[in-house]
Amino acid sequence: MISNLQKRDLAHVWHPCSQMKDYEEFPPIVIKTGKGIYLYDENGKQYIDAVSSWWVNLFGHANERISSALSQQAFQLEHVIFANFTHEPGILLAEKLAALTPEGLTKVFFADNGSSAIEVALKMSFQYHAQKNKPNKKRFLALTDAYHGETLGALSVGGVGLYNEVFQPLLLDTVRAQGPDCFRCPFSERPESCSTPCISFIEEKLKQHHEEISAIIIEPLIQAAAGMKMYPPAYLKNLKELCLKYDVHLIADEVAVGFGRTGTMFACEQAGITPDFMCLSKGLTGGYLPMSVVLTTDEVYQAFYDDYETMKAFLHSHSYTGNPLACRVALEVLRVFEDEQYIKVNQEKSAYMRELAFQTFSHLPYVGEYRQTGMVGAIELVKDKATKEPFPSKERVGYKIYQIALEKGLLLRPLGNILYFMPPYVITKEEIKTMVDLTNEAVQEYFSKAVVEN
Amino acid sequence: MISNLQKRDLAHVWHPCSQMKDYEEFPPIVIKTGKGIYLYDENGKQYIDAVSSWWVNLFGHANERISSALSQQAFQLEHVIFANFTHEPGILLAEKLAALTPEGLTKVFFADNGSSAIEVALKMSFQYHAQKNKPNKKRFLALTDAYHGETLGALSVGGVGLYNEVFQPLLLDTVRAQGPDCFRCPFSERPESCSTPCISFIEEKLKQHHEEISAIIIEPLIQAAAGMKMYPPAYLKNLKELCLKYDVHLIADEVAVGFGRTGTMFACEQAGITPDFMCLSKGLTGGYLPMSVVLTTDEVYQAFYDDYETMKAFLHSHSYTGNPLACRVALEVLRVFEDEQYIKVNQEKSAYMRELAFQTFSHLPYVGEYRQTGMVGAIELVKDKATKEPFPSKERVGYKIYQIALEKGLLLRPLGNILYFMPPYVITKEEIKTMVDLTNEAVQEYFSKAVVEN
Repeated sequence: MISNLQKRDLAHVWHPCSQMKDYEEFPPIVIKTGKGIYLYDENGKQYIDAVSSWWVNLFGHANERISSALSQQAFQLEHVIFANFTHEPGILLAEKLAALTPEGLTKVFFADNGSSAIEVALKMSFQYHAQKNKPNKKRFLALTDAYHGETLGALSVGGVGLYNEVFQPLLLDTVRAQGPDCFRCPFSERPESCSTPCISFIEEKLKQHHEEISAIIIEPLIQAAAGMKMYPPAYLKNLKELCLKYDVHLIADEVAVGFGRTGTMFACEQAGITPDFMCLSKGLTGGYLPMSVVLTTDEVYQAFYDDYETMKAFLHSHSYTGNPLACRVALEVLRVFEDEQYIKVNQEKSAYMRELAFQTFSHLPYVGEYRQTGMVGAIELVKDKATKEPFPSKERVGYKIYQIALEKGLLLRPLGNILYFMPPYVITKEEIKTMVDLTNEAVQEYFSKAVVEN
Repeated sequence: MISNLQKRDLAHVWHPCSQMKDYEEFPPIVIKTGKGIYLYDENGKQYIDAVSSWWVNLFGHANERISSALSQQAFQLEHVIFANFTHEPGILLAEKLAALTPEGLTKVFFADNGSSAIEVALKMSFQYHAQKNKPNKKRFLALTDAYHGETLGALSVGGVGLYNEVFQPLLLDTVRAQGPDCFRCPFSERPESCSTPCISFIEEKLKQHHEEISAIIIEPLIQAAAGMKMYPPAYLKNLKELCLKYDVHLIADEVAVGFGRTGTMFACEQAGITPDFMCLSKGLTGGYLPMSVVLTTDEVYQAFYDDYETMKAFLHSHSYTGNPLACRVALEVLRVFEDEQYIKVNQEKSAYMRELAFQTFSHLPYVGEYRQTGMVGAIELVKDKATKEPFPSKERVGYKIYQIALEKGLLLRPLGNILYFMPPYVITKEEIKTMVDLTNEAVQEYFSKAVVEN
């Protein structure tokens, strides 16, 4: 039975990342309230938000402390133009971000979402080189299976065909290098002991194209949209060296992996590197509001700093750049992080999740591997465990398990045939157990049916 | 004297649309609170926000009603993934927008800011044609002096050199047609009686390129960033006919002009046309939060509606797509519009502003013209009133008047040498008078000094 609100939704709303025809049989779930890791629909049914609502929520839905901060700011100053004007939440946030991110990242440029942050970084890198008399550096190098957002610039550096294939005629000519693939490693290395021979795929491209490459862009430690493909910090360390050797910028897209997801505040920390640009969004506002920042170095900043007449300024603005509401929320998020020591708290939770999920899933016949980095766990489903042959995408295995899990009150949202956990940090051990158990039930239920059908 | 907060700002914040070196002599003003049309800095100094903080604010800063709605929503449901999920504020907002916009615009796609909305419209138009077996339609036609945002796709259709010249190697190859220029009309027509002969500039390009053009994008009635260049509705009416004749989409970028700025709820109304895509942002949330929508027709929607396997879905998503906080705020904005009858209320205010500003400025020797559309008024400063020769941009006439006005407690933010008013709708007649008087004082002061200096 479809509800009145569902009917009204379908009459006018075009949902993102959806074939709307799917909604005929599977209408959108109307969420009324949220609390902690839970969402509640119009019938009062409860769902565990195991994907933090597209990887944004950190400290639970309708978090008392963050909502209070937002409310307070709304009655004080909701917004002001950010050119020639500023405000305390923006200043304090920039200060804190500069302090928390790898050393050398001192300047903070604000934007509205992950895509816009990527566009800012690409444009800054390009203009930097143009102003340093290297106008030929007008291409970017990105990895296969990369995802960096969906505005045309961001989409150009993305490598997931699902999102950009149809738009190819509108995209930049990106230099594409094969990325790390630890699950199907062509060099038969193990992540724990890997010497990252696959970095050679990048060096080959750099040898050929470095004079025309402005920046390399990468998702540190986890290629998230690709299906939570994980790789070791050593890769980033070696990549940074290549960037120095070949004089290209490194853009770290920490939109998905920043703010503790990988076990450290930022993924780059684990490799001990400072990128030239770091893009942050999603968790930045704890899952409340769209905002993003690009952090960069004084070296980059200085290349734009000159008399007005030289026309070297970086012109990129969005109306809501530096929005005080979002800044105030982000500031509260960082305070919660500090006060509650979440990086430390999460260590125990992630160890528990790793142990439990590994035990639960690894041995299953259709599970290629269970892998985890920090608070992100992924189950890669395969048709053949020995050969790692994937299920054909048209079988929509992940999608069907997703539907079964929703029935059970669990919001997973698989990436193709990779199921994953990226829960809010307020999740308890008991709730981790429930999340893993319900996932297991959904998986078992799907495959027992699938076996019967075949 | 620079304050402690200003010092801390300059240490880490890279401001938008700014040569940061300018901030050495003119540090950013630290705003602490806002109320109605006023902003208050850290020293308690008051500023009239005559530009609605980059054209976003509608009903005043820290508006009691809107802040309450936002606060309430924050404690109920701050956010939920918008794929396969939905919520009441999103549904009601989409419904209301479909009802308010020109007939035929029935589907609402959400994004985060104006740029993202433009990217969505460009991508949708292109993919629509690709799926209708017209893959050659992969270019866009846009006007000289157009501004549509600053992500690379949006920047590609922009025609203001200041923003995109340096980035040319990264941009799409847009078909550019000369836009209307009523102040310096090459046909010596008057806006009141114009037969829009300048539409021929577009038709010429269409004759040549229509088979490769997917859409024409335009800012209806006012090319805002170009310096509030205004043109009559007849132009839009004729443009719509050309779009039908040559089988290209019309994208109406109402990001700046929507929500009553031009005197009607949407600018397209004045021409009685329905575009294929309408992009809205800025005023959508009354100046509170970044959000945007693209409205389109059922005809477009149906071209993407098919079985999953056909891979015809429109894939474009931002994490915070359909953010409940922003939707709830937007919904409250539309309710205020309705309850307080702002379209009607503004008629009297805009008539008063027109009369007063015309009287005050038109006769001045360095004023080319005072023009106004709805609640947007613009003073075009010229070096020579007879020939309409502009001031050289390097003299920074507008920028210097801006600084004088700030001293006087008025936030103008000229576009080159065009001063303009785009105040929040809560402005009273008395406040309009103050705004005009202070502007006049600032202008007089600048030119009396400038004359002495020369």
